[in-house]
Amino acid sequence: MTATESAASIDLDTVAELAAQLRVDSVRSSTSAGSGHPTSSMSAADLLAVLMTRHLRYDWDEPHLPVNDHLIFSKGHASPLLYSVFKAAGVVSEDELMNGYRRFGQRLEGHPTPILPWVDVATGSLGQGLPDAVGVGLAGKYLERLPYRLWVLTGDSELAEGSIWEAFDKASYYKLSNLIAIADINRLGQRGQTDVGWNIEEYQRRMEGFGARVLTVDGHDLAAIDKAMTAAEDTSGGQPTVILAKTIKGKGFSEVENKDGWHGRPFPPDMAERAIAELGGVRNMVIRGPRPEPAEPGPVPEKPSTVPPQPAAAVKPPSTPPQYAVGDKIATRKAYGDALVALGARDDRIVVLDGEVSNSTFAEEFTYAYPERYFEMFIAEQVMVAAATGIAVRGYRTFASTFAAFFTRAYDFIRMGAISGVNLRLCGSHAGVEIGADGPSQMGLEDLAMMRAVHGSTVLYPSDGTSTVSLVEAMARTPGISYMRTTRGSFPGLYPDGENFPIGGSKLVRSGDNDRVTLIGAGVTLHEALGAADVLAGEGIAARVVDCYSVKPIDTETLVAAAEATGGRIVVAEDHHPEGGLGSAVADALLAAGQQNLHLTHLAVREMPGSGSGDELLAWAGIDADHIAAAARKLVGG
Amino acid sequence: MTATESAASIDLDTVAELAAQLRVDSVRSSTSAGSGHPTSSMSAADLLAVLMTRHLRYDWDEPHLPVNDHLIFSKGHASPLLYSVFKAAGVVSEDELMNGYRRFGQRLEGHPTPILPWVDVATGSLGQGLPDAVGVGLAGKYLERLPYRLWVLTGDSELAEGSIWEAFDKASYYKLSNLIAIADINRLGQRGQTDVGWNIEEYQRRMEGFGARVLTVDGHDLAAIDKAMTAAEDTSGGQPTVILAKTIKGKGFSEVENKDGWHGRPFPPDMAERAIAELGGVRNMVIRGPRPEPAEPGPVPEKPSTVPPQPAAAVKPPSTPPQYAVGDKIATRKAYGDALVALGARDDRIVVLDGEVSNSTFAEEFTYAYPERYFEMFIAEQVMVAAATGIAVRGYRTFASTFAAFFTRAYDFIRMGAISGVNLRLCGSHAGVEIGADGPSQMGLEDLAMMRAVHGSTVLYPSDGTSTVSLVEAMARTPGISYMRTTRGSFPGLYPDGENFPIGGSKLVRSGDNDRVTLIGAGVTLHEALGAADVLAGEGIAARVVDCYSVKPIDTETLVAAAEATGGRIVVAEDHHPEGGLGSAVADALLAAGQQNLHLTHLAVREMPGSGSGDELLAWAGIDADHIAAAARKLVGG
Repeated sequence: MTATESAASIDLDTVAELAAQLRVDSVRSSTSAGSGHPTSSMSAADLLAVLMTRHLRYDWDEPHLPVNDHLIFSKGHASPLLYSVFKAAGVVSEDELMNGYRRFGQRLEGHPTPILPWVDVATGSLGQGLPDAVGVGLAGKYLERLPYRLWVLTGDSELAEGSIWEAFDKASYYKLSNLIAIADINRLGQRGQTDVGWNIEEYQRRMEGFGARVLTVDGHDLAAIDKAMTAAEDTSGGQPTVILAKTIKGKGFSEVENKDGWHGRPFPPDMAERAIAELGGVRNMVIRGPRPEPAEPGPVPEKPSTVPPQPAAAVKPPSTPPQYAVGDKIATRKAYGDALVALGARDDRIVVLDGEVSNSTFAEEFTYAYPERYFEMFIAEQVMVAAATGIAVRGYRTFASTFAAFFTRAYDFIRMGAISGVNLRLCGSHAGVEIGADGPSQMGLEDLAMMRAVHGSTVLYPSDGTSTVSLVEAMARTPGISYMRTTRGSFPGLYPDGENFPIGGSKLVRSGDNDRVTLIGAGVTLHEALGAADVLAGEGIAARVVDCYSVKPIDTETLVAAAEATGGRIVVAEDHHPEGGLGSAVADALLAAGQQNLHLTHLAVREMPGSGSGDELLAWAGIDADHIAAAARKLVGG
Repeated sequence: MTATESAASIDLDTVAELAAQLRVDSVRSSTSAGSGHPTSSMSAADLLAVLMTRHLRYDWDEPHLPVNDHLIFSKGHASPLLYSVFKAAGVVSEDELMNGYRRFGQRLEGHPTPILPWVDVATGSLGQGLPDAVGVGLAGKYLERLPYRLWVLTGDSELAEGSIWEAFDKASYYKLSNLIAIADINRLGQRGQTDVGWNIEEYQRRMEGFGARVLTVDGHDLAAIDKAMTAAEDTSGGQPTVILAKTIKGKGFSEVENKDGWHGRPFPPDMAERAIAELGGVRNMVIRGPRPEPAEPGPVPEKPSTVPPQPAAAVKPPSTPPQYAVGDKIATRKAYGDALVALGARDDRIVVLDGEVSNSTFAEEFTYAYPERYFEMFIAEQVMVAAATGIAVRGYRTFASTFAAFFTRAYDFIRMGAISGVNLRLCGSHAGVEIGADGPSQMGLEDLAMMRAVHGSTVLYPSDGTSTVSLVEAMARTPGISYMRTTRGSFPGLYPDGENFPIGGSKLVRSGDNDRVTLIGAGVTLHEALGAADVLAGEGIAARVVDCYSVKPIDTETLVAAAEATGGRIVVAEDHHPEGGLGSAVADALLAAGQQNLHLTHLAVREMPGSGSGDELLAWAGIDADHIAAAARKLVGG
């Protein structure tokens, strides 16, 4: 058959043959690799066979066609099944499946990643595919406004992850009827029965409670699956749909069916042979289902009201950010909001999300200006980052914000975003003890370490309005995961409008021929370092001050030059715990550059803070101007 | 009245007066501090007035009495209300409330922390108090077996956090009828209506779907609240209970009632005056409710079956761990399981949790030996860490394990655990590219950075069975958050049985008088460093090899001595991204010690890995013996 044949022409006997092929190939590929999850694949093979032949509208020759449906394996460990689907579609060869799966340098990795053109997002950390799909669904419904659907295969073990319920909550809130979750309830997790087991009614109650339409089905009855998928395609109800399928782990091979102890274990070769025999032998059908119809973007649908009344003073959004005068006080978080608005005016692919703190992060400015490109994710940081990922997958430039402290909630999603290779811009406000009275739960003191450790990340920490605006604009052009840390309080502008802040650069805010010590800060500590430099100048000690606004990549050249110029005497001050932040970045860079003769004093938040004013806490932590000056004095005085 | 008066003697008129006092004090304290959340406190004042006078069984003079009920503010931002309750109970003075709240150096912090003896856990990052309470509830029901109850005040905004649903799931699975959530549904979040608003039925469906008994109530009808709380005290149903209360934000002050724009804002003084007047003025009642009856531990209740059949070979658990011979291969994750069992035999306060991967982390060994002290948390890492926290609060020594990669899911909970000052032991298995075929989603490559940045943390990374056992035992004695990273593969034993591994120490595995270069590794890279040393020795280059098993605190003395002895030539290799891990720890320590003349080569995982064998990936990442030897050769050869 050819790819142009209609789905209706594929009869259920053929679908059954395909299901057997998917099982056999799941067994063969995992046995050949010596690892993988055949039984978790076999439970869902019937679901996938019906889906790919009759419901998934997908042009396998043009995976990037905008109208294609999306197939997301939230249970990424069922990769043998996914890759067997790709073989059945004729896009992965028998040779690649048998000799490439889980092998070094090959693209059929243990868990799917977007190295493969038919994969949207990396999965394998459970409970992420469905939240990611919420993002793709938001893009499809509200931004692209194309009739594609998301088919998301979830396992039952991962339904214990809270992020799944954040995803259902947002999918129903935003009426994502384009989202169809296929829940493969095979009862068995890695080490025994899942907490809900085969209690289908309990799952149904939970999913319906979260606003989904639930269609229960015997996950091995092809006709019933087909009927449920047809029903799921009726999107008039304005709800996400779950095809809740009771299945049997290892289905099709009686030796392992519904048996404990076979999670994540390939069958030994003799057992694989028996399984293949029981499943009717190896097949090599190539079979394709329906292709999507061409479509143009539809009308902009009504979105649930999430934008509070616009302030009376609001005006037509400008395409250039406001200019901040040197010396005028502004909070970098406010400049972040200003910059987003200006960026949004020039680039209609800018999309913003926030975790119900947009009046703190100042993302709200974008909300007022471009409500159609803003998504309120409420207090649910995991699905916020996941949705930003899914929207980014569709080619938008997403910015997501919350308090720096609360991005720790989404670290697994950020890490997986890097594996997906997605371009994602995050902004964490209210960093450090500077926030004052709210206390340690609200103070981001680990965020720089967390974000630096993400592969390929960019970490920025501006000190004033001008640099914030420049860096927000740079983020929009930066691939990978980029992170900006903003500060709660208002501080004087340091740079004239128009100054450029390249990523990987830094600024010499003070420097002269007679500098005897280098003071390095970023954000709030840059202002403290400047205060220290003033004090030191009064004592006749010339201090070089470096604004390390780009924490990663860091400006090694300027750091080395400063070390050279000041006898290796360096004070780094940061509003962060001592590990993994600015101080580490500076130390790593100087040592990697082979810099010798270093006398580095590292000031950071070394004890557990409480409440207080920002000034009190900066002093208490030993990172204010006085402490920086004292450290410098000690280095210079020897 | 006195503390010994019975609850029944406090009539509802008095309770109403108390509610007014709590509101007035919430207004006064936040206005005096110039920050805080009065309106979020006012919505729950009636609930707390009824609770503290009639239902909370608590001896305010003996907050650590084992039979006391527990009061946990999951909505920690309602701290003005909590502290007003403390004032009403006579344990916080008027002066402290008015002059201590949110002030520097004071204990009434912006969000509650256990600096206060009546507070179990720090809250303020939303969606954590209820999961923490699951842990206290598990301890109360299954370990202490005392009849205390947990009363947990949750806000409605935080019901959007997935962790809340992980908590309900576990609370119902473990039949925690001692857990009573009081959900304060005041409709308004920080920046507008919450996603569910006042749709009480929707919340009810969700909570019932997750197995809770739900009692809906008008949150300002004292008699109705009292009736619901009485009903909640009937624990015969074996379910957690939710008192689902429809409330009004800012209740009691007509200017702000149910109005947007008053989240997290204290009233200006003139407005506060009007509020206090409308609420009937300042009161200074001291009033206490029922005290707990003395109680002895009850019988061990049946626990839902979570332990798979014990392997036939299992024997009576030994109280000493197995001895591992030098040269015999063992995985450190296996030694972790062995060590837990031995520890559990000697110390009946050892409690273990795992995220449904106990056959990977080897926590399952403890499961078989001590099922009564094991809690299966399924694939829900957030509530796993929270429950471990709650159990630890009750004096148990909790160990929680999952893959190193998946602790990223719980980073916010780990961070908050440090603020709670809790002693928590975490073990992350399957660290680094060494795991091989499963691919990057399963590789912990950020965990050392993440865990080092936690305040007061201890980070351990053993290389063989003997050191693992010693360090697991050390963790049991270590305060704060301690983390052990274990390796998937089996590697030869390096140390004889009985060797001691103090936290903060290291081991010189190879050293001599003519060492020309220092090779630093931990875990898998220590074995690679030893391989490199062998190769180098064959070339006549003596290499010192340091086992940095204690990554934090790190053994600065040994590092400095090694640097001195080897001309500052150091190669650090780690199976982790370059930022914030072992290399950073070494660099930070040497620079902080003022070590000069450093030539440090840092080998780490600098690109995104795929699948492959462990050996292939170690070589690909440039952290295997060959690459370490090459780096050393370059340093020495110059």
